[in-house]
Amino acid sequence: MAEAEGDAQPVPPASATAPLEPGATIGILGAGQLGRMLSLAAAQLGFNVHVFNDTPGGACPVSGASTIAAWDARDALIRFASACDVVTYEFENIPAEVARTVADHVPLRPGIRSLEISQDRIAEKKFLTSQAIPVAPYAVVTASDGADAPSAVDVPGTPPQRPFLLKTARLGYDGKGQIPLDAGADLSAAHRELAGVPAVLEERIAFEREISVIAVGGIDGSVLAYDPAENTHANQILHRSIVPANVSAETAREAVAIASRIVQALDHVGTIGVEFFHCPENEGGDLLVNEIAPRVHNSGHWTLDACLCSQFENHIRAIAGWPLGSCDRHSDAEMSNLLGDEIDAWKTSISHPSIALHHYAKGEARPGRKMGHITRIGERRVR
Amino acid sequence: MAEAEGDAQPVPPASATAPLEPGATIGILGAGQLGRMLSLAAAQLGFNVHVFNDTPGGACPVSGASTIAAWDARDALIRFASACDVVTYEFENIPAEVARTVADHVPLRPGIRSLEISQDRIAEKKFLTSQAIPVAPYAVVTASDGADAPSAVDVPGTPPQRPFLLKTARLGYDGKGQIPLDAGADLSAAHRELAGVPAVLEERIAFEREISVIAVGGIDGSVLAYDPAENTHANQILHRSIVPANVSAETAREAVAIASRIVQALDHVGTIGVEFFHCPENEGGDLLVNEIAPRVHNSGHWTLDACLCSQFENHIRAIAGWPLGSCDRHSDAEMSNLLGDEIDAWKTSISHPSIALHHYAKGEARPGRKMGHITRIGERRVR
Repeated sequence: MAEAEGDAQPVPPASATAPLEPGATIGILGAGQLGRMLSLAAAQLGFNVHVFNDTPGGACPVSGASTIAAWDARDALIRFASACDVVTYEFENIPAEVARTVADHVPLRPGIRSLEISQDRIAEKKFLTSQAIPVAPYAVVTASDGADAPSAVDVPGTPPQRPFLLKTARLGYDGKGQIPLDAGADLSAAHRELAGVPAVLEERIAFEREISVIAVGGIDGSVLAYDPAENTHANQILHRSIVPANVSAETAREAVAIASRIVQALDHVGTIGVEFFHCPENEGGDLLVNEIAPRVHNSGHWTLDACLCSQFENHIRAIAGWPLGSCDRHSDAEMSNLLGDEIDAWKTSISHPSIALHHYAKGEARPGRKMGHITRIGERRVR
Repeated sequence: MAEAEGDAQPVPPASATAPLEPGATIGILGAGQLGRMLSLAAAQLGFNVHVFNDTPGGACPVSGASTIAAWDARDALIRFASACDVVTYEFENIPAEVARTVADHVPLRPGIRSLEISQDRIAEKKFLTSQAIPVAPYAVVTASDGADAPSAVDVPGTPPQRPFLLKTARLGYDGKGQIPLDAGADLSAAHRELAGVPAVLEERIAFEREISVIAVGGIDGSVLAYDPAENTHANQILHRSIVPANVSAETAREAVAIASRIVQALDHVGTIGVEFFHCPENEGGDLLVNEIAPRVHNSGHWTLDACLCSQFENHIRAIAGWPLGSCDRHSDAEMSNLLGDEIDAWKTSISHPSIALHHYAKGEARPGRKMGHITRIGERRVR
């Protein structure tokens, strides 16, 4: 926390960055499986947890306190914030007004900038481009009634025969709010399908694999990262993450370096997930950033079983102002999501000596709903 | 769960041994750090937890439900038991009447026999002797006013110059209820100091080290065990457990075999801790069982960080009727208790990349109180 001489940044008051003592209360906005796993990690370190959500969720039974109220219940939100020593969030789509209200009363970590950048694809692309971080060629499609939307071939520098994705700027996840477009398709019609909201038209890159890096930023500006995971998707939802990813050491280093630059550029405090397309044939660079999630990330769940300090513990450490935990892994890992009634696999997975089950204790196994995950670990092959 | 042909045991009704589904409720008697870590392990597997204790404790904030009532509040106990699908305990000194009341309403695992044997040193010694398991030479000292207590040299086969320990039969732990006696000391006076309650007079064995085995019994009769830990004590409270123990492979195997025989002889369902004196010079055997704890055990805390499946998860698996998890470790480990104000070491331990902190979130750091523990892991040297 010592400031380098000549550093123009004002030194924050000690109280703002002093490490929280065990017994302090960590607030979490959201109460799903990510909140639940954050809460369990906080408990190990001796913290109290208070969750805020608009409906009861899986994090509530494992947290010392819960506030269930609408996101616009300002008084409830202020009471919640005032009862916490720091507040974090399990998902990036919390309303900006909620974040600002909380931040007026208690440190919000990661900060509002991480939220603003990641909850709007247009802001995210512009931020990444401003940092000279490669992304897929894209064009902004502004709000419209669809009539004056640009044609797909308007994306600068993109040959007209390439396919595209039209993605809403906000509130998209797991493939929701996305329309695939072939070259020459009717962009205006597609944009009308998305209700004419601000969107991004993005070239569909022919990538060899998707990898992701889970990085974490400390309150003192330190950055650590776990080795990249290689991810496969089914129906646009993460299906499996394998560590180590099948990429060269150089590519892995480059991915970690990019994720670390993002953490630093955002002054991000906490865990972040950065998804990459790995496309060695691509002229614009063999690693393109696809998306940033300013929080613990599904493709980092393997760290619970293969590392001494998981992405969840590291997030709690960071927002508590503690030193970051090591991102080394003691084992190689393969994490598989259990979606919908795939959760029935708990019955067989518990007989496998190398598999850990994480069951999220959700009620109804709706199709596509994230109900749990399993991680198979094995001896670490490369040290 | 299939019965071997010719097995005289009646087949239990399916409902009694069918595995519990995630979402079921696990009851825990006691709410200290062991209950807290059990509750966190149950949460990972998707179970609800309901704790019962006479005072609020660290397990309550991480459990979905808590009943705080006196141990003799029979109605509260019955309501608690009726709200659970299975009940377990975090310590062996729960009143027998409590255990019986619970067991009348819901499966109690481990069973009452494990409790009865381990909460009374006389019953424990007799049980071990009946199983031909070596223990230190001992004599039973019956309840008396002290006048008719035997002399120390009455322990059969023990040379009169050896030192002894006089231990109350019940309610002793961490060296409480024990008086060291030199050869020829006044046993009657010592027994009066212990209020003349039933006691055991035990030869103080000159041992090279103490080791312990954490074993676990499944509902189907299966038994697994973790590798022995080597334990050191300070002020008669466990200070450090190191795995692997510095003993030969043969001694380790023998310790595991003895612990497994104890699990089987007790029909024990759940985790058990068995403490041994390792005394290679001893004529009566180089491994003597010192004590049995029919529950998760302090010397097994290292399994949280060095194994995919900890002693806590394995206890939950066992009492839920699930297959046991593997007891393999991926790392070597050294666990240190943080007693009283040693808990302040959290501040330095969190900067060590190979150390995991477990802070129990207790309020006051009274001298000798178990406030937390740290585990240092390292690469597994022997596979």
